[in-house]
Amino acid sequence: MTTTTEIRIAVVGVGRMGLTHAENLARRVHGVKLVAVTTSSAERAAEARARCGDVAVYPTLEALLEAGGLDAVCISSSTSAHADNVVACAQAGLHIFCEKPLALTLGDCDRAIAAAEQAGVKLMIGHVRQFDAGHVEAKRHIEAGAIGHPLVLRAISGDVDPPPPSFANPAVSGGLILDAMYHDLYLSRWLLADEPQRAYAEGDALVDPAIGAVGDVDNAVVTLRFASGALGSLYVSRTCRYGHDLRIEVIGDEGAVHIGRFRQTPVRLLDRQGVHHDMPFTTPDRLGEAFVTEMQAFVDCLRDDTPPPVTGHDSRATIAVGLAATKSLHEGRPVEIPNTQYPISN
Amino acid sequence: MTTTTEIRIAVVGVGRMGLTHAENLARRVHGVKLVAVTTSSAERAAEARARCGDVAVYPTLEALLEAGGLDAVCISSSTSAHADNVVACAQAGLHIFCEKPLALTLGDCDRAIAAAEQAGVKLMIGHVRQFDAGHVEAKRHIEAGAIGHPLVLRAISGDVDPPPPSFANPAVSGGLILDAMYHDLYLSRWLLADEPQRAYAEGDALVDPAIGAVGDVDNAVVTLRFASGALGSLYVSRTCRYGHDLRIEVIGDEGAVHIGRFRQTPVRLLDRQGVHHDMPFTTPDRLGEAFVTEMQAFVDCLRDDTPPPVTGHDSRATIAVGLAATKSLHEGRPVEIPNTQYPISN
Amino acid sequence: MTTTTEIRIAVVGVGRMGLTHAENLARRVHGVKLVAVTTSSAERAAEARARCGDVAVYPTLEALLEAGGLDAVCISSSTSAHADNVVACAQAGLHIFCEKPLALTLGDCDRAIAAAEQAGVKLMIGHVRQFDAGHVEAKRHIEAGAIGHPLVLRAISGDVDPPPPSFANPAVSGGLILDAMYHDLYLSRWLLADEPQRAYAEGDALVDPAIGAVGDVDNAVVTLRFASGALGSLYVSRTCRYGHDLRIEVIGDEGAVHIGRFRQTPVRLLDRQGVHHDMPFTTPDRLGEAFVTEMQAFVDCLRDDTPPPVTGHDSRATIAVGLAATKSLHEGRPVEIPNTQYPISN
Amino acid sequence: MTTTTEIRIAVVGVGRMGLTHAENLARRVHGVKLVAVTTSSAERAAEARARCGDVAVYPTLEALLEAGGLDAVCISSSTSAHADNVVACAQAGLHIFCEKPLALTLGDCDRAIAAAEQAGVKLMIGHVRQFDAGHVEAKRHIEAGAIGHPLVLRAISGDVDPPPPSFANPAVSGGLILDAMYHDLYLSRWLLADEPQRAYAEGDALVDPAIGAVGDVDNAVVTLRFASGALGSLYVSRTCRYGHDLRIEVIGDEGAVHIGRFRQTPVRLLDRQGVHHDMPFTTPDRLGEAFVTEMQAFVDCLRDDTPPPVTGHDSRATIAVGLAATKSLHEGRPVEIPNTQYPISN
Repeated sequence: MTTTTEIRIAVVGVGRMGLTHAENLARRVHGVKLVAVTTSSAERAAEARARCGDVAVYPTLEALLEAGGLDAVCISSSTSAHADNVVACAQAGLHIFCEKPLALTLGDCDRAIAAAEQAGVKLMIGHVRQFDAGHVEAKRHIEAGAIGHPLVLRAISGDVDPPPPSFANPAVSGGLILDAMYHDLYLSRWLLADEPQRAYAEGDALVDPAIGAVGDVDNAVVTLRFASGALGSLYVSRTCRYGHDLRIEVIGDEGAVHIGRFRQTPVRLLDRQGVHHDMPFTTPDRLGEAFVTEMQAFVDCLRDDTPPPVTGHDSRATIAVGLAATKSLHEGRPVEIPNTQYPISN
Repeated sequence: MTTTTEIRIAVVGVGRMGLTHAENLARRVHGVKLVAVTTSSAERAAEARARCGDVAVYPTLEALLEAGGLDAVCISSSTSAHADNVVACAQAGLHIFCEKPLALTLGDCDRAIAAAEQAGVKLMIGHVRQFDAGHVEAKRHIEAGAIGHPLVLRAISGDVDPPPPSFANPAVSGGLILDAMYHDLYLSRWLLADEPQRAYAEGDALVDPAIGAVGDVDNAVVTLRFASGALGSLYVSRTCRYGHDLRIEVIGDEGAVHIGRFRQTPVRLLDRQGVHHDMPFTTPDRLGEAFVTEMQAFVDCLRDDTPPPVTGHDSRATIAVGLAATKSLHEGRPVEIPNTQYPISN
Repeated sequence: MTTTTEIRIAVVGVGRMGLTHAENLARRVHGVKLVAVTTSSAERAAEARARCGDVAVYPTLEALLEAGGLDAVCISSSTSAHADNVVACAQAGLHIFCEKPLALTLGDCDRAIAAAEQAGVKLMIGHVRQFDAGHVEAKRHIEAGAIGHPLVLRAISGDVDPPPPSFANPAVSGGLILDAMYHDLYLSRWLLADEPQRAYAEGDALVDPAIGAVGDVDNAVVTLRFASGALGSLYVSRTCRYGHDLRIEVIGDEGAVHIGRFRQTPVRLLDRQGVHHDMPFTTPDRLGEAFVTEMQAFVDCLRDDTPPPVTGHDSRATIAVGLAATKSLHEGRPVEIPNTQYPISN
Repeated sequence: MTTTTEIRIAVVGVGRMGLTHAENLARRVHGVKLVAVTTSSAERAAEARARCGDVAVYPTLEALLEAGGLDAVCISSSTSAHADNVVACAQAGLHIFCEKPLALTLGDCDRAIAAAEQAGVKLMIGHVRQFDAGHVEAKRHIEAGAIGHPLVLRAISGDVDPPPPSFANPAVSGGLILDAMYHDLYLSRWLLADEPQRAYAEGDALVDPAIGAVGDVDNAVVTLRFASGALGSLYVSRTCRYGHDLRIEVIGDEGAVHIGRFRQTPVRLLDRQGVHHDMPFTTPDRLGEAFVTEMQAFVDCLRDDTPPPVTGHDSRATIAVGLAATKSLHEGRPVEIPNTQYPISN
């Protein structure tokens, strides 16, 4: 492959996350060309063109596939549509990057994974924090033995304000734990290199009654028990008003590693009332560069014909944990997590 | 009362904590005179005299009470002896400061509280963190509404190395949760001004088999559900090798407050390997001045005839939570916590 | 101008900084097309093509200008060549971005500025820290009155290891103060919105005798006195082994603002030896994104026909301060700084 | 010496600092008994008794000396009276702790030192920061070679609000540099184990005209050049509104060590406006425990008959630097510092 060959890619769904991916593919990722996006909204089409340059816009995935001329797709549609979208793109012979989570049920995960395997196309699932320099550095410390054997993972994931109830609806997003704690569940497995076996959850719609009305909670804590005996203590919130707070600690029997920060810019204001500084408020504030690194990793695995760094099986295993924790939340008892047969990706 | 009147006090039991109290009473607390300690060890008697000046030493509590001439005692014997010691001192008409936890069962708590009430003596339970400037400041922020309504408390309490199995033995110490998570259970109730109603715990002897051999665990995580719906996510460890790590976060619906620190001295060393600083390693490292403030509060409540800031009922309510969490640990299911009828002290 | 029109630009000199600019222009800056670079080295030409895609390579600026087809240039040649390069490009009718400092003498500054003015082309000088989010935020705080009236600026600029003596040579780089304290001198004026009037410097080749041998120093401190009476206390080092340490504090009569940080990734490692984290080691580590923002600002001022945010006069005023401080260093006395007639850019 | 023997001490002058010493001697320092204080103010006498218990009060030093019965004195009178007080106490055969600075002129230093030597009494000068755990730890790192050879010391000392002009008056306090930068000048010599040889200062009454009216400045920066070639860059302020900010950095040729902190309690408040925490505001906030350690060191050197850890010669050498910097401030030129023949205390 010469350096002038470029992967031709389209972005399916240009909501907030899809636009981020589209703009990065158009402007900052090497070896790829963004040729199209899909959206049925004229307004979003205009915004996509403004941010990404001159790209084709199709109203539906079907129209996109019919037009052809693609090597790969980036699926950023709503979670409930992921599995069907993956199957359709796989059957069209396209490599696939699909935003997390892969699906809302283990059955849909299996269907999507099987479609990609049968078509011989690559399937990578979005997991941006695995590409953040801080998380990579922490994983490196753990693998180097710097903290001894991992015993406990503590995590917090906070969003500043709740999404609209139409999105929070568990039928659309999978609910708080599957949607917003997904990354911490994934990272627990990845950082500890260990499989969660049991989950217990407590939570409620403590702040936003509209979230309660659609059958979800806005704050929850989850306890995990891993195969090695290690423990997880996780907290997720949709009402973390002070910022987008992503922090993980892994305590081992010889030390600990912490990932996280409490500031956006390295600026401190000091006055008679004390010392003040800012916080990240959005995911791009906190993780911006990692979105470029993630998409570059996808393009590189296509160009180099290497396995994707985050597989459908990784996402399926994470979803199994999220489903068990969600069941515990509703049933008030610890819930066992079915074994996955697939190894943890590095 | 003129300023020259001093409370005459004795310290019962001069292990590590008893010696700290004795020295503070002898050297740094105003309005009190340490007149005696009890110990059956000649070595400890000598150390007590070296650190506290010329004090009487009695081999037993009985001998101390027989000698008379006291206004108050500070009970720092082993936890399993607390209740009997409190009863004996109350019957001797002495005011009592008793180290936490008050007892190992709710029945013993009731017996000790009743004895003090019948004798008309004051009973204060040791809870040093309530007298630490950081915890006081955090409580003040919460009461001032700075974080809105509290939703979630996250806590970690880590000791660097495990105690000997003879102490870890649940029959002596009450076990990991009652012994070492006690302060966080107490602070949860105090900071949230809310009653825990349900507890779930997971834990194991992940590091020290000797602790497993006496029937205890060395690392545990606990989930609490409070009357208001608020949540607790707590972690306690006897193998936190990097330091004595005490941290609490309370997240409310308008903000959050964090207590804790990652340094002992305000010194930072920088070299080609990065930036390095120290951590507190022991309880006096982390909380030293608060031990003086706590004992001064006890002496002041005797001199001013005001209620003690930490009552037997406060300790009983905390022990109820610890016992429920310990039961959950062993039974693998969430355990309800019996109601307490007493308000939370400020 | 339609969105498809792109500024055609070439990079003159592809050393370390020139390559950074070239890659950003090729990959990450919008509305511009990198069409050529100049270098006489086959190796650098290959590296430029590897990082920037298919660009023309000319051995000299003369050859580049002769080939034509350009709207603008980015001059990243050695400082001693800046003034001649600016004059040649201005006379060719090209807009110019020139790396700091504009020249090594005030006479050369005037010659370069005059050439651009006479040709009617824009001249912007590189000052990447003005485009860093932290510095922008600090400036905003000061302008909003958050610290009252600025009284004192304290600054440190440290590079990990010295450059080769051939570069450190004052005849090439201008010497430590003009070369490496340039940014802090510039920022002093920009953040305080005040003109320095007197400079005093002390310094020596304390570490690297090779730097002393070419007539320069490797560590220096500078005192500035400003028109308003405000004070500057600045330190610059070529031997700051623990990292690339860039920090500024501005203390006002009502508060202070600090810019700077002591970590690269938000990761903390904790073990029995204490708490450890990393530091930025290079300029791209510390300021990476600001290089893109800076170059975008240059392209935007060409496309929108607005004044450049950093002018030749800004650089000239900064160089006047650096020359005075360098003179003080050599003469052992405070040196007055000639007035500049030009206002400070925002 | 048996443990019941106590040094009998009096405090001369019970202003803010004298009261701190008196209370510590009465309550927290072992092996000493506070028997008297001097003050001509009935109000101060009452406050001294309230804080220190039942102590004798004399209107003057003469009356105190006449009454006799003392082993030692702690002199906390105004700086301009120090030398005469030291001479009188030495002639009375008393050991002496004298607050810094020893005197306002080198001649008075010599007179006071000679008096103590002739009388064969110990003379220790107050330098509380040498007894602060952070400064001790930093000194230890430097002596252990952790930063290589020290190159540069950067320091800031800020007081929140100016003292009354009657105190700021250079005839009383010695002026800003001698009074408030004294500690940093002392620590420069102590931490670098190096003698300052030249000083340059700039400063002004930038905030408080009343300070200008008595002939002093409220903000100043000082450059020091040491015998080894090392450099000092120091800033002192009487108008540091955000807190009592004491920080020192020592940069060596292999690393650096920083002393200082930006918080009082380990509490962080987070809300939609960002992250907020407190700062120390007073010297006892910042250094409280060190005052006890310092006075204990004085008592211990009397009881153990060892040399005092801070000598009159140390203070004299520091005053020489302060006088040179003050002269530079007024004359607008660098000023050489006369050699001291005495080694630097550890």
